Amino acid sequence: ARPKVGYFYTGKSPNQEIFNKVNEIKVGEIKSVPVVVNEETSVYDGIVSMFLNDVGTIFVISDGYLTGVVSRKDFLKSCIGNMDINNVPIGVIMTRMPNIITVYPNETVLEAAKKIILHEVDSLPIVDKEIIDNKEYCKVIGRISKTNITRLFIEITNI
Amino acid sequence: ARPKVGYFYTGKSPNQEIFNKVNEIKVGEIKSVPVVVNEETSVYDGIVSMFLNDVGTIFVISDGYLTGVVSRKDFLKSCIGNMDINNVPIGVIMTRMPNIITVYPNETVLEAAKKIILHEVDSLPIVDKEIIDNKEYCKVIGRISKTNITRLFIEITNI
Repeated sequence: ARPKVGYFYTGKSPNQEIFNKVNEIKVGEIKSVPVVVNEETSVYDGIVSMFLNDVGTIFVISDGYLTGVVSRKDFLKSCIGNMDINNVPIGVIMTRMPNIITVYPNETVLEAAKKIILHEVDSLPIVDKEIIDNKEYCKVIGRISKTNITRLFIEITNI
Repeated sequence: ARPKVGYFYTGKSPNQEIFNKVNEIKVGEIKSVPVVVNEETSVYDGIVSMFLNDVGTIFVISDGYLTGVVSRKDFLKSCIGNMDINNVPIGVIMTRMPNIITVYPNETVLEAAKKIILHEVDSLPIVDKEIIDNKEYCKVIGRISKTNITRLFIEITNI
């Protein structure tokens, strides 16, 4: 058997080594912490939560499972629509399941990036799916955004 | 002299070829069209312009030169601050020169990505600088955002 050593020369340049691995990096490896609120949270409190956590998208859960997504764009729309943001619950303005684009932790970052560009969103919830009584439910376990991808771009090209 | 042919075998894998070139890609090669308004534009009209052009950041110019930048975050802040967005000009809420992070068209995408992450912005104006009477002025000639970088990430890893 080959001895287990920390390093041995493969004849490839470090660039190529890293690049060949980039295609395999999983979403779960570079994920951020998701910011979640309940459907009853007011639009105003949702905006405040977005600022306090410095994120561009927040996730809405009900009984522990993902029911909605709200972006800065959704919030801005409510604001210019003369909505009473202190009294309208976030459940009214959110994008609701099943119209939410999600990603699994074992999908690659490349797959997540493609979904982000195709569906024109800034961020995706990383989810674990559960089947209960023949219905699908998503537990939100993370978040991947264009910021994570930009950071990864720097890591792989900054050599 | 070596004949000028379109292709010859270099012995490198296509992956490595492309990867070695990624560090050299200039901002000007992947730039988007900038969306600009004047300082007198109302906050409300600025938000509408942002939606109509589907961008996350707009640039403010005065006499043809960059004076400010406004992001979705800035707009959201005005909205929750009970501001009369129909009557307040965008010049009041924008981030003003010289506090704007810019990038030149011949800087690399890597350099732009680093500025975006370091300064926590979504997008940078790509500018040409001019010196008039010993003062610096910036002409906005493009825009580079996390979206451009995410697209480039897909291009270089989707092989």
